[in-house]
Amino acid sequence: MSGSTIRLCVEHPLGEGQTLSLSRAQAHYLFGVMRLGAGDGIAVFNGRDGEWRASVAQAGKRGGTLTCEIQTAPQRDPPDLWLIFAPVKKARTDFIVEKATEMGAARIVPVQTDFTNSERIRQDRLQAHAVEAAEQCGGTFVPEVTALHKLDTLLADWPADRRLMFCDEALAGGACALPSGGRGQPWAVLIGPEGGFSPPERARLSALPFAHPVALGPRILRADTAAVAALTLWQTACGDWS
Amino acid sequence: MSGSTIRLCVEHPLGEGQTLSLSRAQAHYLFGVMRLGAGDGIAVFNGRDGEWRASVAQAGKRGGTLTCEIQTAPQRDPPDLWLIFAPVKKARTDFIVEKATEMGAARIVPVQTDFTNSERIRQDRLQAHAVEAAEQCGGTFVPEVTALHKLDTLLADWPADRRLMFCDEALAGGACALPSGGRGQPWAVLIGPEGGFSPPERARLSALPFAHPVALGPRILRADTAAVAALTLWQTACGDWS
Repeated sequence: MSGSTIRLCVEHPLGEGQTLSLSRAQAHYLFGVMRLGAGDGIAVFNGRDGEWRASVAQAGKRGGTLTCEIQTAPQRDPPDLWLIFAPVKKARTDFIVEKATEMGAARIVPVQTDFTNSERIRQDRLQAHAVEAAEQCGGTFVPEVTALHKLDTLLADWPADRRLMFCDEALAGGACALPSGGRGQPWAVLIGPEGGFSPPERARLSALPFAHPVALGPRILRADTAAVAALTLWQTACGDWS
Repeated sequence: MSGSTIRLCVEHPLGEGQTLSLSRAQAHYLFGVMRLGAGDGIAVFNGRDGEWRASVAQAGKRGGTLTCEIQTAPQRDPPDLWLIFAPVKKARTDFIVEKATEMGAARIVPVQTDFTNSERIRQDRLQAHAVEAAEQCGGTFVPEVTALHKLDTLLADWPADRRLMFCDEALAGGACALPSGGRGQPWAVLIGPEGGFSPPERARLSALPFAHPVALGPRILRADTAAVAALTLWQTACGDWS
């Protein structure tokens, strides 16, 4: 995937000869910002059918259509990994969603913890960031950004077969390794809020039979740094980075 | 290190009873923004003498003094690791410096590559970001941000004993592992610009006897994400994360 090809995430099914109609925002981007015209080619994906080459059939100010031509890459889904994180300030929350998408999380779950400041998120905005990151990073998959959950509720309803890697600044200097044998299984990575987990949360997490505490080195990381570092550890030990 | 303690990086030597005079900006922060007054305690470090508790002796609008009381953490230097990166857009370059500091790089080296857009950097601004990140992450060390080098020149003057891990999006899907046996040696991690290395650069890097190409997974990462991911791989394989 060359950095110079425009990539667009669309909703339509993709197949040879398929006509794709563009949203107003997409038409503005392609024809107003990028100055494409009839016949120009871009790459499209929809999260299910891989990446396809499509050409501009009709270019208008408020809409337009593409014709889907040929598949250029197969669909590639990330491992079955959730990233669970406590929202921080707006820009850093956006970054966490962007980075989780690039790093190959399949689902992004904002949680409210005892020390989380924000009590609401803009789910649609965060989902749009995930789409943009997928367009940018050459992926064919867009992770779902869920609504804000309470950590307590999320843990109470935890799926029986999903392991949890939890990263806690209180562990600084401890073991950074994941248990071997976790490859191919459903996992979640949980990043604490800036300020860490509360003592009751920490006690509860440590006692969970499916939870694996992991340290992220001897320095304290900001939440967005911690998300990338934790996903790197997980991807190399259990994911699609090897 | 609790998240609620104010940490300040100062220039002075630190020792029991030492008086530390504050810059105008530091005085504004402590007394104007954080509303500290005489007798209040903060943590200070200077990159050499560990972390110390200091109390406000004199608080003024344009200056003030602290008295250094007792050492609260020993000096802790990161491994001998350089992060070499091609500057990108301003905000992301700031992020790379911040993240390299949190992740424990000892020196941060901006380089101009064939596909680097920016031809100049604000070295003082980037250095200030490294100071702020060190204050924030609980570290006692501030990495030096060097002037902008040309990649060619940097490689021509390369120190004989320093290994180079270079991360290239063209390697996507390749091996993510570092050679074993690199621990305790001087290293550098090189992150390519967005758009990747040019073919001549790639050929030159691949031929260097001290260079180890490393892939950062199957997706294309933005430069700031790649910096954190690469430093995570290096720290766990060769650094102080284990």
